Amino acid sequence: MKLIKVPTSKDSYNIVITNTFDYLHKYLIELGIKDKKVCIITDDNVCDLYLEKIIEILSVITDKVSYLVIPHGENNKNLDTISSIYNKLINDNIDRDSYLIALGGGVTGDMVGYASATYMRGNHFIQIPTTLLSQVDSSIGGKTGVDFNGYKNIIGAFHQPKLVYINTNTLLTLPKKEVNAGMGEIIKHGLIASKEYYNFIRDNKLKINNLDEEIMEELIYESCLIKSNVVSQDEKEKGIRATLNFGHTIGHAVERLLDFQLLHGECVALGMVSASYLSYMLNQVSLEELEDIKQCIGDFNLPIRINTLDEIKIYNELFYDKKTKNNILNMILLNGIGVCEIRNDIDKEKIVAAIKYIL
Amino acid sequence: MKLIKVPTSKDSYNIVITNTFDYLHKYLIELGIKDKKVCIITDDNVCDLYLEKIIEILSVITDKVSYLVIPHGENNKNLDTISSIYNKLINDNIDRDSYLIALGGGVTGDMVGYASATYMRGNHFIQIPTTLLSQVDSSIGGKTGVDFNGYKNIIGAFHQPKLVYINTNTLLTLPKKEVNAGMGEIIKHGLIASKEYYNFIRDNKLKINNLDEEIMEELIYESCLIKSNVVSQDEKEKGIRATLNFGHTIGHAVERLLDFQLLHGECVALGMVSASYLSYMLNQVSLEELEDIKQCIGDFNLPIRINTLDEIKIYNELFYDKKTKNNILNMILLNGIGVCEIRNDIDKEKIVAAIKYIL
Repeated sequence: MKLIKVPTSKDSYNIVITNTFDYLHKYLIELGIKDKKVCIITDDNVCDLYLEKIIEILSVITDKVSYLVIPHGENNKNLDTISSIYNKLINDNIDRDSYLIALGGGVTGDMVGYASATYMRGNHFIQIPTTLLSQVDSSIGGKTGVDFNGYKNIIGAFHQPKLVYINTNTLLTLPKKEVNAGMGEIIKHGLIASKEYYNFIRDNKLKINNLDEEIMEELIYESCLIKSNVVSQDEKEKGIRATLNFGHTIGHAVERLLDFQLLHGECVALGMVSASYLSYMLNQVSLEELEDIKQCIGDFNLPIRINTLDEIKIYNELFYDKKTKNNILNMILLNGIGVCEIRNDIDKEKIVAAIKYIL
Repeated sequence: MKLIKVPTSKDSYNIVITNTFDYLHKYLIELGIKDKKVCIITDDNVCDLYLEKIIEILSVITDKVSYLVIPHGENNKNLDTISSIYNKLINDNIDRDSYLIALGGGVTGDMVGYASATYMRGNHFIQIPTTLLSQVDSSIGGKTGVDFNGYKNIIGAFHQPKLVYINTNTLLTLPKKEVNAGMGEIIKHGLIASKEYYNFIRDNKLKINNLDEEIMEELIYESCLIKSNVVSQDEKEKGIRATLNFGHTIGHAVERLLDFQLLHGECVALGMVSASYLSYMLNQVSLEELEDIKQCIGDFNLPIRINTLDEIKIYNELFYDKKTKNNILNMILLNGIGVCEIRNDIDKEKIVAAIKYIL
């Protein structure tokens, strides 16, 4: 078991990384949940796998446990689903002192976090992420949100969880494609923050692809550490947190233009290839490093090219990203592997060329 | 002109109280709005009165001004209207660095504040309140929200404005009934925080009812001062801020049960009479003071009695208030005029008797 304490502007919370749900009881007690109202929210894929177990653990601590099953998938990440959550919370007399538990992937976590941020102007919530992507990325840092008219997470709030509990064994029931998608963000963590970690990922591709228990705990721990370090320094995304958007500016545009047919991690992979090529054009990454990055991304069956889109369409779409302020594009570029920088002075021509590179 | 600087956890903002829009330009420049995108949101009652003027003032500062007119009234304070605001913001490329301006009463202010809190996880907003209620109460303190299924402000967020600009002359176009409703919150400020201010209100009832310019500026200034003092001490309503709910626990229940047929300030008036009677039963307020409070409330044509509801129904409704945690009712009681306290140990019998007093 590994533990990360993440400081926040008001408080702090734990990320627990382990291969069992056995310690969940202890951490819930530590939070002071005894006898509090708790509502577990999960999706129709995850409920059959873990809901019963989580209810069992909670029932020893409080007799006020309820649950709601929402439809899975990005298509349901909208204000209608949020309204169904609000209805449930009102019906169950959930109050500001109650806890919501998000049990599932990133879509569930983002929506439950948003519901918790906005119901009665905020109550408490706990993340129990069950996908690799949510374990290393979306469950940490307090970004919550829903899509609106095809704009990903354009509605949202910053709202920190009280606990993130990761059971790496939930990955065993995850489709391989989703594990790969999670690897997109993990590779990103290496690329922007640690060459050593990037090499660890690359050198352990076989074990990772086989979900080796020890390697996965180490992998997830290191990724959580990088992500939580960055977000603690910049809770509201005013500065350094933007580096986590490496691969995301172009990735999000591709994701939107393909109407979410590709997984988020797959779009990020494409965005990272494009941003790495842009870094190469600016002489900040060697050709060897660029090839190494593409190889590593490909090793986890993530796409490095897409042929159904137009570069100008993608370029124009960049300005609809919520990170874009005053029509100034902030691009995250590498300065070699493991080091990155935020740039807003890259001309259109170069960005279009970088987009063309993945088409 | 009077000015109050309200400190917040991150920053501070000004409340400007004056009888003209002439100084708005200066304060917008001070905020750094020059050349920023600005979207003014107002309702179909207020737009004919002040929208043109505000656009004119802004157009000197930036050429990126747009506006949206939403339907007025509590019935439209819902997520559908919020969605129409989101659509407008997306269409106009409004970003995290842009400003929304809420021009109108409390409903507009609460909704624009909520849209600003949740669009792209938060951008900037300015309050230009045009009703007495919103000038002395809802525009200050960062509480934003919308109703959901008849539950008032049950969805919301804490999000501080960047500026509150009050032109007291907007009251001249306000229906008398709405001015009176605003007096409900103003009397509340006197009752919970300052006997001197309460006496000032009572002693100037004629001038106030005639909207005397000098008295109104003084009145609004003192109320804003009391409210901002309280909210600065407790931004997220963990303690002392709850005292502002004097009259609101029962008031909100009445408001909901009457399906918002009475104005908010009218319901608060009823709640204040009930809470004052409860304080009298506990020997914290004299019979003379109780009668004085009822007289003062009546002087501004606010109700002190309602005869269409049942006390048990109202009592049960109290538990649906979002201030109710773990089914414990926090009642705000007076300790004489100008002093209040938060109590959670009042038995059901006494609360029911206090409700019965206004029936």
